[in-house]
Amino acid sequence: MTFTVGRPRHTPPRHEGLSPRDEILESAAQLFTERGFGATSTRRIAEHVGMRQASLYHHFENKDSILEALLMSTIEGTLETAERLRGAATSPAAELYALVRWDAGQLLAARWNLGALYTLPEVRGPRFAPFQRRRDRLRERYRVLARAVAEDAGGPTDPATLELPLRLAETAIAQRTDGPVGDPRPVAAALADAALRVLGARPEQAARAASRLPEPEPVP
Amino acid sequence: MTFTVGRPRHTPPRHEGLSPRDEILESAAQLFTERGFGATSTRRIAEHVGMRQASLYHHFENKDSILEALLMSTIEGTLETAERLRGAATSPAAELYALVRWDAGQLLAARWNLGALYTLPEVRGPRFAPFQRRRDRLRERYRVLARAVAEDAGGPTDPATLELPLRLAETAIAQRTDGPVGDPRPVAAALADAALRVLGARPEQAARAASRLPEPEPVP
Repeated sequence: MTFTVGRPRHTPPRHEGLSPRDEILESAAQLFTERGFGATSTRRIAEHVGMRQASLYHHFENKDSILEALLMSTIEGTLETAERLRGAATSPAAELYALVRWDAGQLLAARWNLGALYTLPEVRGPRFAPFQRRRDRLRERYRVLARAVAEDAGGPTDPATLELPLRLAETAIAQRTDGPVGDPRPVAAALADAALRVLGARPEQAARAASRLPEPEPVP
Repeated sequence: MTFTVGRPRHTPPRHEGLSPRDEILESAAQLFTERGFGATSTRRIAEHVGMRQASLYHHFENKDSILEALLMSTIEGTLETAERLRGAATSPAAELYALVRWDAGQLLAARWNLGALYTLPEVRGPRFAPFQRRRDRLRERYRVLARAVAEDAGGPTDPATLELPLRLAETAIAQRTDGPVGDPRPVAAALADAALRVLGARPEQAARAASRLPEPEPVP
């Protein structure tokens, strides 16, 4: 006969099959996006998981560390995809099309709308510099591709326009804030089309060339 | 000789020439956008103004009422402008161009980046239904214009694309979150150009036709 060690959980485990660290991230993602970052304490996150607060602090130093892990999760897959596309795409237009489609697709399909946390004032502080550096790296890749596409198409190359493909991908965040989006694939494709059009390029050929490039997995 | 009544202010008045109500809004706008809505109490707002908390409650019932007034301020000028443009514009393309230019222009030029508060989960609750109704009204006007422009141009009329002119105007919010934008006018014009391009229209003629339509006042 064995005995369980420590205090019992407050509630049965909420997230079957996840590691304790991922359970914390899952509960925090839900609470930060549904109730607000400022309005959510680590105590509330631990209660939501069904875990003692001391156990939570075994995995994360504080609430900012949890937020950082969630922000990183929104960008790391896209950065890896950007690297893969760099090798696989046959033109800057096809590469940009596939990048917007991926980035918007994962922002739309992720279980929680974590991109909505980008605008938190807390995220501008030095604590989040590692996340901001990764985001700057992605932004720079977008800009390089946008310039190449606009130059090929004879389209506008002013700095404000070259920012727009990234911005268009990230409108997925605001669309989710305003209500359910439905199937993410046509929305992500419309955003990829739009990213080429704002640069003066026609999207049809790029969309065909991108048909063999990676797309996010459909939501299970 | 006269005596002042009540406790003295904690600090000298911060906002010369504003009414007490506007002083509260000004301090709250700064604190909500720089420190976060959840992290800011009405006590902190009152201290920032240099006002007793009881005096703050004379003007606003609670923190949500202050947030509502700030959100309304981001949209009411644009709704009025949308009505004026409806009478003054010579084509849907010119009207949409001028609407995006105005909306983006005021989001960029406003003293605080209040649009960043749109993604707060708190704003989705029934307490903010009057704000959401006004925003839906603006969104519908954008959609009607976008459909007319796309049909004239033989461009895409899928629902996801017809959302994009509004979304492009609102990318002004994310651009400000990421850092100082500089002169808002070229950025607002680039967003208005982009709104026409995503609908398959060429922006040059619309930009010329919009040159006599209202623009936000330059920042003082």
